[in-house]
Amino acid sequence: MTSTADVDAIVSAAAAAAPVWRRSTGSERASWLRAAADAIDAEVAELVAIADEETRLGVPRLTGEVARTSGQLRLFASVVEEGSYLELTIDDADASAAPPRPELRRMLTALGPVAVFSASNFPFAFSVAGGDTASALAAGNPVIVKAHSGHPRLSVRTAEIVAAALEAAGAPSGSLALIEGREAGNALVQHPLVKAAGFTGSVAGGRALFDLASARPEPIPFYGELGSINPVVVTPGAAAARGEALAQGLVGSFTLGVGQFCTKPGVVFVPEGLGFEDAVAAAVPAASGGPLLTDRITAAFPEGLARLETDASVAVVATGVEVSGVRPVVLATDARAVAERPEALLEECFGPVTLLVRYSSEDELHAALAVVPGSLTATLHAEEGEDVAETLELLQERAGRVLFAGWPTGVAVTWSQHHGGPWPATTSLHTSVGATAIRRFLRPIAFQDAPERLLPEALRDASLARLPHRRNGVLTVPASR
Amino acid sequence: MTSTADVDAIVSAAAAAAPVWRRSTGSERASWLRAAADAIDAEVAELVAIADEETRLGVPRLTGEVARTSGQLRLFASVVEEGSYLELTIDDADASAAPPRPELRRMLTALGPVAVFSASNFPFAFSVAGGDTASALAAGNPVIVKAHSGHPRLSVRTAEIVAAALEAAGAPSGSLALIEGREAGNALVQHPLVKAAGFTGSVAGGRALFDLASARPEPIPFYGELGSINPVVVTPGAAAARGEALAQGLVGSFTLGVGQFCTKPGVVFVPEGLGFEDAVAAAVPAASGGPLLTDRITAAFPEGLARLETDASVAVVATGVEVSGVRPVVLATDARAVAERPEALLEECFGPVTLLVRYSSEDELHAALAVVPGSLTATLHAEEGEDVAETLELLQERAGRVLFAGWPTGVAVTWSQHHGGPWPATTSLHTSVGATAIRRFLRPIAFQDAPERLLPEALRDASLARLPHRRNGVLTVPASR
Repeated sequence: MTSTADVDAIVSAAAAAAPVWRRSTGSERASWLRAAADAIDAEVAELVAIADEETRLGVPRLTGEVARTSGQLRLFASVVEEGSYLELTIDDADASAAPPRPELRRMLTALGPVAVFSASNFPFAFSVAGGDTASALAAGNPVIVKAHSGHPRLSVRTAEIVAAALEAAGAPSGSLALIEGREAGNALVQHPLVKAAGFTGSVAGGRALFDLASARPEPIPFYGELGSINPVVVTPGAAAARGEALAQGLVGSFTLGVGQFCTKPGVVFVPEGLGFEDAVAAAVPAASGGPLLTDRITAAFPEGLARLETDASVAVVATGVEVSGVRPVVLATDARAVAERPEALLEECFGPVTLLVRYSSEDELHAALAVVPGSLTATLHAEEGEDVAETLELLQERAGRVLFAGWPTGVAVTWSQHHGGPWPATTSLHTSVGATAIRRFLRPIAFQDAPERLLPEALRDASLARLPHRRNGVLTVPASR
Repeated sequence: MTSTADVDAIVSAAAAAAPVWRRSTGSERASWLRAAADAIDAEVAELVAIADEETRLGVPRLTGEVARTSGQLRLFASVVEEGSYLELTIDDADASAAPPRPELRRMLTALGPVAVFSASNFPFAFSVAGGDTASALAAGNPVIVKAHSGHPRLSVRTAEIVAAALEAAGAPSGSLALIEGREAGNALVQHPLVKAAGFTGSVAGGRALFDLASARPEPIPFYGELGSINPVVVTPGAAAARGEALAQGLVGSFTLGVGQFCTKPGVVFVPEGLGFEDAVAAAVPAASGGPLLTDRITAAFPEGLARLETDASVAVVATGVEVSGVRPVVLATDARAVAERPEALLEECFGPVTLLVRYSSEDELHAALAVVPGSLTATLHAEEGEDVAETLELLQERAGRVLFAGWPTGVAVTWSQHHGGPWPATTSLHTSVGATAIRRFLRPIAFQDAPERLLPEALRDASLARLPHRRNGVLTVPASR
């Protein structure tokens, strides 16, 4: 465990590196990010072996996750090179305005040291070199990662590889560091030199850290991705037209990664009397459980199941194959019970379980949807010709990503991804996956009547000739890119 | 004073209007904003008369502020029409990617009812129909304004005019409402249906509301503009080359609006022995005081002065003409005292006072700048050829807007303005003035594999043909605009 004194020394080293990161050019930072990506890819065999020992997620899944992680670093390299994220905005002086206007040049700039709290369930993509780290570095900030206790050796090794690669590529020492232990994490988020934090984890853990960040003498933004129930609605039309395929898709999605995805479909609204529940019951027995990520999750899963099953309305629909003491479970209740007792029935339960909610009318469906908490995703399986306007309205009010095909457990790392949503899905109006995650770790700064030699490089006319910018209200994308 | 029950009814009406606002098109909202601007301009004489009675700011200043306020509403109308603020982003499906990628379409969408806490010192531009309200409405959110007790009748009348104009233009009832009283304000920021808050005011008042917003069961973003000392540095070169003009500019700036601007230069670092202090002393006697905005500010000003003068290092440089019991005051101390006792010497003091800080070396200057708290602005008056790199570095680390000519008290309402800064200047990474203030009241939402008929209008292909958007990573500004 890292001592409070060591946390202080580590943050101070990051603060010393911060001006170098802030002043670095986009092409410098892009090369640093790519060097980190290359170094991770070069050590994939060793990293996956450690990760598999610590998380039991299996080599194929972990190998794919490494590719996702290095790809994410490379996406941010291209985001930085493209330059839109700087939001370069110039208003030329206007002596004829009333009152006369000075010249103003605005851009986004780095914050300083960023704390990243890594997750248990994605030991690469949401961990030491994951999306929070990649976007914070891309924005020009040194990063201090609080390791997740579920994969300590992997965390240390990843941090060594990435820190060495960054330094070898020319970044200053102190660019990426690791701390361990809950007390150290609390000290980190409260350290005066830490300027923002990213977090992926539980509602309880995230709320505790959010409260610490908000209660500081100088509060800092805390970007937490906490809990998500990820509602799915199957309409009568969809159940009738393709119930069996949907049932199989659902089973594949809620058991993926042994049900430990933050986008796992946790509650599925199904029309009564159209055989969808039977189709699910038929598909579940072929699905397998598996070892869960940590001792805490292993202990919490049966407790969560028991809490759900305690409700008089809940029945077991079907179970799958038990592996390592864990078997997939589908439960069912009805929409009236959900509308009456959302706290009891709609709490996220990490692991391979989902809850079918039978509805017998649109009114019942809508009354139950109205109590669904904020989620990362919402999925609507409907047929053309069905009137889904009100259902869709209810879903999009409470989710960050709305799906009309497929299942929410895949999260593409792209320019348009949004992995966020109303509380408790996230603590902010931002995404933790995709290009725009970079905005979380930037602040605007404007320069008024600055001599060109004193402007940051990105705001000088030479940079405007090649970077997207707005001048006197007109957005321009230079062709010479 | 508005009762808690009335707050609940008012917020519920706003929540009922929220889906209409969220689904409104950009051109609808632009027309609503322009209708509000026209209605304010049409009643300028009546509004200014009430405002002058309540604030004693004078007809010329208040008339100018009305123009600023209606102009601000019109700027946001054009921001909404231009459409970049939507951040439209499309990634087409890619079956060849590993894993295959779905189609994703991302945009920013409205939050729901927004609370706005208005300011004492700008009864129009930062009040009922001010920048927070304009940007929240532009984003597609109904607004509930907590009136400032310094101008209650003006608040009521402005709200009547704007609410009527919005409804006459086709907006739903509940689009803009007013509440009064501190208890009502506390209830407002804690109301479950309120989704964000904007605030302009004191550090103590803002912090209290920020804490309430953060401690909610579902925390909401609280965009507070609190306190700002607005450091100014005069270099030896500038003092020698144009000390007299700078002294006159400084006196004009710190006494503007009787020193009650949030961008008032509150601390001015001046080189010792170059006559700048004498030049200020010569300019001050011609400056006049005037009535302060409220009884509370009138009582607090002498208290703040007394606190500063208690410090053994502080001396009075000069005073101006007393009007309504208030006279401008310039105080002086030295850089060593500031570095040692920043809490005592660098607290914002609302009213016509500024503190000169003498420095005799760059090291002294930099040690004192390093303890200056976050500010809305920082100003550097230097001559070409002087090495100001480290001074500039220290200033830009602690300010949202850095000026190289002129004085910070003018805040142009433009695309590139940034009126924000590190704590305690603001509680967020956003501006409260200028086009990008709209981002505070929007959240991202992504649609995956959506049939075109179920997409929001802005994300359909017909809209992409005329609105700026990014597709497969490439930013495009359609020419057919």
